[in-house]
Amino acid sequence: MKFSCDSRRIRRDLEALAQFTATPGRGVTRFSFTPEDRLARNYIKDRMAEAGLKVYEDAAGSVFGRREGKLPGPVVMFGSHYDSVRHGGIFDGAAGVAAALEVARALSERGAATALPLEFAALIEEEGGRFGRPLFASRVMTGLVQPEELEAAKDADGVTLAEAMRQFGLQPENIAAARRSPASLKAFLELHVEQGPVLEAEGKDLGIVDTIVGISQFELTFTGRPDHAGTTPMLHRADALVAAAAAINEINALARAAGPGTVATVGNIAVSPGAANIVPGTAVLSLDVRSVDAAKISGLVEALKSFLAKLPESHGVQVNIAPGVAVPPTRFDPKITAMLTAAAAGRGLAARTMPSGAGHDAMVMAAIAPAGLVFVPSRGGRSHCPEEATDFEQIAAATDVCLEVILQLAAG
Amino acid sequence: MKFSCDSRRIRRDLEALAQFTATPGRGVTRFSFTPEDRLARNYIKDRMAEAGLKVYEDAAGSVFGRREGKLPGPVVMFGSHYDSVRHGGIFDGAAGVAAALEVARALSERGAATALPLEFAALIEEEGGRFGRPLFASRVMTGLVQPEELEAAKDADGVTLAEAMRQFGLQPENIAAARRSPASLKAFLELHVEQGPVLEAEGKDLGIVDTIVGISQFELTFTGRPDHAGTTPMLHRADALVAAAAAINEINALARAAGPGTVATVGNIAVSPGAANIVPGTAVLSLDVRSVDAAKISGLVEALKSFLAKLPESHGVQVNIAPGVAVPPTRFDPKITAMLTAAAAGRGLAARTMPSGAGHDAMVMAAIAPAGLVFVPSRGGRSHCPEEATDFEQIAAATDVCLEVILQLAAG
Repeated sequence: MKFSCDSRRIRRDLEALAQFTATPGRGVTRFSFTPEDRLARNYIKDRMAEAGLKVYEDAAGSVFGRREGKLPGPVVMFGSHYDSVRHGGIFDGAAGVAAALEVARALSERGAATALPLEFAALIEEEGGRFGRPLFASRVMTGLVQPEELEAAKDADGVTLAEAMRQFGLQPENIAAARRSPASLKAFLELHVEQGPVLEAEGKDLGIVDTIVGISQFELTFTGRPDHAGTTPMLHRADALVAAAAAINEINALARAAGPGTVATVGNIAVSPGAANIVPGTAVLSLDVRSVDAAKISGLVEALKSFLAKLPESHGVQVNIAPGVAVPPTRFDPKITAMLTAAAAGRGLAARTMPSGAGHDAMVMAAIAPAGLVFVPSRGGRSHCPEEATDFEQIAAATDVCLEVILQLAAG
Repeated sequence: MKFSCDSRRIRRDLEALAQFTATPGRGVTRFSFTPEDRLARNYIKDRMAEAGLKVYEDAAGSVFGRREGKLPGPVVMFGSHYDSVRHGGIFDGAAGVAAALEVARALSERGAATALPLEFAALIEEEGGRFGRPLFASRVMTGLVQPEELEAAKDADGVTLAEAMRQFGLQPENIAAARRSPASLKAFLELHVEQGPVLEAEGKDLGIVDTIVGISQFELTFTGRPDHAGTTPMLHRADALVAAAAAINEINALARAAGPGTVATVGNIAVSPGAANIVPGTAVLSLDVRSVDAAKISGLVEALKSFLAKLPESHGVQVNIAPGVAVPPTRFDPKITAMLTAAAAGRGLAARTMPSGAGHDAMVMAAIAPAGLVFVPSRGGRSHCPEEATDFEQIAAATDVCLEVILQLAAG
């Protein structure tokens, strides 16, 4: 298959960006407003300039390369983030940035003129790895970040986000200047690794995300009674962990019964006193429920609550459910989804529409612009680890699809 | 009911000993070879001397009060330990020491002569709270402690057991001198709190222990695959915690099915990576199985292994079972058990024979002498905490039973 986009250049950019890590030999660790950010940012800016783009940074520090159209606006924007988790891989985020650089180059080589201007985006701090504030750049662009957040958010050394920005040469008090109006944006497109096993398992070349799942998180606390593990007969126990294990089993069964598109995970558990010879008196566990369908989340949680309500009687254990994060599902623009699907089909690529189980900048941008998100396969479903891998040819093929849709959107 | 033993004096001794704690207001913390040990030891020696006993310490530092008989030996010994756990209660161990002091006083008041000599024992370091070496005094007396252990065992400050003994005025190199020969002992009796809920629940005055359970401990490691909790469908997961929860449920069911006298406990669990949004890749849990019947322990463990062998197929999770402590059940001398039972019945007390789910000095002493162990009720089954409670009248009644059996044993 002939590509407009060149997988070798995409590979070169990804391997170059991978060098800018705070943990050489132990994966990519590229937090925002660090020396690694500076090196990566300069590399990206150089590539943008080479592709004939006008390079600028917004007030939050995200990097943009602009290609003018015949009309002053609105802008078609394409990009992703270039920060990473700690000890992450070379593809998460950076794949979409490399795709943006490659589209800019391909258009430059083709000498293509568009009616609307294009902007290629390399966004910061999507992972929240340094300050615990994920999706930062897109939240700034959509007006969701107030100056107070910049003062409140701190890294592991106690440096606030505002201080880090200042030390990096930015002016946090001007953060509002980075806000984009809905009128200024024609569309936002992003290419990202799937971070899951579905595309590889089904032999697809790419995925076209139609929904980002809603997320509801909870902390469940099971309170029984700590007793001596030797002297307390089974029938006299109020074992918090036995009750918690029953709940974990139920959560798993409920999520499976909900069918594809819904998942539920107990990712952490801690028991107290936590000694081999003491019956656990309390167990605290995290619960993360996600679905493309908000009703499936609430249905699962209600069914779980009914189950938990029986535990005082059956296990002598009380349960408290404390809600945490709650984000509803986000649907992407059906027209853009259809355009991406048609472009993939026209190029003979095996594509499927699918939900995303993780949040992405495109999800945030969808609040102010028609948005689209394209997934490329993650080998073994692995992500956020050095083993993260995607074929460069697959990235190039998906970038071609994005390029075609970008040109359609920019036609005016 | 008329007691030979006086519950008020038992109470006075227990409340006096409770003052010798390193954590006033937060329970009894009385570790061996500390200032609190010195104060408690001096109190006990004074009471022994008042009761006409000849007081001495053995090479390990345990305290004995001897009452001569018409014959030089063998000795009938009665006592328990006076060290505590951190933030423990006033009864665990000390109840048996107070009972010994009271029996000495009652015999002195009665002017009773016995054929065999009696020794009343206040043993150190049963809990292993300071050096992590439980049942120390009785292991010394039965020849199970080598000098190497004294140099290897360290407290939280890095002080070895040998150093602590030296600083306390003892000579650790002479530890072998504390060893007792089987020929020197006619019997060993101990009174101790139950540390479980059975006697209270059944309305019994005392329990006569016929067996100390065997203990087998294991570490179970479940290895699945860490995956993104949002992007990994339920059917693609190898969730170590879901598999571990199934095992916890099975362990609980197997222990219940084994019937009274067998317990199994998962007291601790840790998962990795341990984040709310990551499917657990590994789960490590402790398993403690106890039974009066060694065959029930091995049967439970074999049934569990059969269950675990299915998890690679059913859950995609591998399981490793690493064995730890393994102690077989100890049966107490049937003649002494019968004597205690008859004495309780003769006094109109509600008694039952029962297993002990925890180890005690009497268990160790049973290796060199016919031994007996009497339990008094623990309110709410609580122990190793400041809430530990037993009625002083119940201690006095059980002490009466012990006194009667001591006199029978000492008759020659």
